[in-house]
Amino acid sequence: MSTEGQVIRCKAAVAWEANKPLVIEEVEVAPPQANEVRLKIHFTALCHTDVYFWEAKGQNPLFPRIYGHEAAGIVESVGPGVTDLQPGDKVLPVFTGECKECPHCKSEESNMCDLLRINTERGVMLSDGKSRFTCKGQPIYHFLGTSTFSEYTVCHVGSVAKINPAAPLDKVCVLSCGISTGLGATLNVAKPKKGQSVAVFGLGAVGLAAAEGARLSGASRIIGVDLNPSRFEEAKKFGVTEFVNPKDHDKPVQQVIAEMTNGGVDRSVECTGSIQAMISAFECVHDGWGVAVLVGVPSKDDAFKTHPMNLLNERTLKGTFFGNYKPRTDLPSVVEKYMNKELEVEKFITHSVSFAEINKAFEYMLSGQSLRCIINLEG
Amino acid sequence: MSTEGQVIRCKAAVAWEANKPLVIEEVEVAPPQANEVRLKIHFTALCHTDVYFWEAKGQNPLFPRIYGHEAAGIVESVGPGVTDLQPGDKVLPVFTGECKECPHCKSEESNMCDLLRINTERGVMLSDGKSRFTCKGQPIYHFLGTSTFSEYTVCHVGSVAKINPAAPLDKVCVLSCGISTGLGATLNVAKPKKGQSVAVFGLGAVGLAAAEGARLSGASRIIGVDLNPSRFEEAKKFGVTEFVNPKDHDKPVQQVIAEMTNGGVDRSVECTGSIQAMISAFECVHDGWGVAVLVGVPSKDDAFKTHPMNLLNERTLKGTFFGNYKPRTDLPSVVEKYMNKELEVEKFITHSVSFAEINKAFEYMLSGQSLRCIINLEG
Repeated sequence: MSTEGQVIRCKAAVAWEANKPLVIEEVEVAPPQANEVRLKIHFTALCHTDVYFWEAKGQNPLFPRIYGHEAAGIVESVGPGVTDLQPGDKVLPVFTGECKECPHCKSEESNMCDLLRINTERGVMLSDGKSRFTCKGQPIYHFLGTSTFSEYTVCHVGSVAKINPAAPLDKVCVLSCGISTGLGATLNVAKPKKGQSVAVFGLGAVGLAAAEGARLSGASRIIGVDLNPSRFEEAKKFGVTEFVNPKDHDKPVQQVIAEMTNGGVDRSVECTGSIQAMISAFECVHDGWGVAVLVGVPSKDDAFKTHPMNLLNERTLKGTFFGNYKPRTDLPSVVEKYMNKELEVEKFITHSVSFAEINKAFEYMLSGQSLRCIINLEG
Repeated sequence: MSTEGQVIRCKAAVAWEANKPLVIEEVEVAPPQANEVRLKIHFTALCHTDVYFWEAKGQNPLFPRIYGHEAAGIVESVGPGVTDLQPGDKVLPVFTGECKECPHCKSEESNMCDLLRINTERGVMLSDGKSRFTCKGQPIYHFLGTSTFSEYTVCHVGSVAKINPAAPLDKVCVLSCGISTGLGATLNVAKPKKGQSVAVFGLGAVGLAAAEGARLSGASRIIGVDLNPSRFEEAKKFGVTEFVNPKDHDKPVQQVIAEMTNGGVDRSVECTGSIQAMISAFECVHDGWGVAVLVGVPSKDDAFKTHPMNLLNERTLKGTFFGNYKPRTDLPSVVEKYMNKELEVEKFITHSVSFAEINKAFEYMLSGQSLRCIINLEG
């Protein structure tokens, strides 16, 4: 029996309050409106951004809310005006969108869509300012336009990437946020040449994906930088060849790296969001040709500060958002990199839990033991 | 009668003390040693860097010294080991060199030669640590490896670019420093696409050359920024279409420019060296694709400071040195741009004086009335 046009009753993990365990509730999911699609989520992962907003560290905490944005699913139904997707399509919902009409979408260089750019403050759908979720008669806020901690969710069509129908959703779900962010930072922005050296700051999932990008690029040396030495062993699987723990040195880490590399690395990618790491990542690249790419999101009062001669000596400093991938245009090709065994996604997936155990995924992340924990909504 | 291998007695403008008028003296110029060439200078221009060091604003004032580095001449003789140049070649001496052997010279991206990179502190030849100039029995310091305020000078072969023998030396002399610096900043580093908007900070010779580069690139809007409104009329000749004087506005100039351009310019080039202008030049480029290029040399205690989100929103910040031109490899092609009438060099040359009147060139520059004053050593 088709559910198209009907309200769907299903399970969702609702965050009723900041820092309190999510509660699996029965929710009602309204049908998609114009330019919206309703997805059945098969697998979702947990990303730091979910945890950050669940901890109410964002500016305007919104509760109750359904978190989740790194996921894979199948289109259940589409609203009026949707022509790019149809029921049955395998998709990745994405926390940022691509309207294909604005100056950013029309630019070859940008993926920062004016209409659908990430908005952490908005908890409702764009078209009517309302939520599509109801629980116990109460509207529940959306998160990042995805809210994938629910068996069904509604997204703007511009935030949904159609992927290879053969793709295993329990693996490619992690490509909808962190892994693509790190991978794209290296492949699309830092662009190391074969044989060059790359430093990666922060060896969490995003940093390891940046290292994976360096490995795919044929980097000769991949220097991992992290304050936690327990990360080093695992990082080897991602191509990291050398490790630097800033705590082991009296001098600034940029100087340590410059001494290791005869003047600096060719490329660096900063994945921690620490302002000091950003500055080090920039100052550790070689003059003449070094490129530093910032990925990690800083605190709002941070100031990036460096001597301008570091720039005038022909260093380049760039930032990236979602690895410069345009969600709908480019994500399918990232999935293809996995399908053709170029990109190794499995090594990012360290844990797996049932939907009922979703709070365990938070524990794994908060204790630092997981890279990615997959939450199975199929069971 | 050949002068090869002989000491040449000729005229040079010697700076005996900081801030005191140069004195035309008879000097002795020793023959070139290994990997050196001796040039007859036909025309030299005056650049701010000459004035800056003559005013003894550099770290270690060296006097007596022969300044001058923006010039054109003809090879008189070559020292042992020189195979790339021969007597009679038309050349531009350059304040920075290209050894063709170091990692920078071998990199496609860098022009910051390890061996011959600009060195404002050294007043002697590399090979033997000695000067080739003597006046009244006293050695006279070189400047930037060029010392073109002399009828004859000795340079390292790596600091001399061979150019088209048909090139008029009274025009192309200005291509050996400032004009190429600004032009290359736009053409080689900012790389605006046809139809894009470009902001240029500072409308002196370097900034106007950056504007000229934007004009050659087919920029649709070229916004000139300067504190001196008298520069605006002249700037129109260089393709500048709009003017912003930061003094005319209560809000930061980056905000004024963002409002003029629906979110920011596509490219900006900073040619003043003011740290505030550098920050404005960066923050006035559009998110998603904007590129800001720093050219102007800052004070040594300056700090470049911005909120890292300005970077994470996909802006790029780069610095450049000598417009990223490799002196020997690339300068001949800049001369060709003039020869084929693409690049208009004449409009940069506002004044011309005889060698005896060289101090007038300093007056013109210090009073802000000249872009470039050519000093004729042929007369």
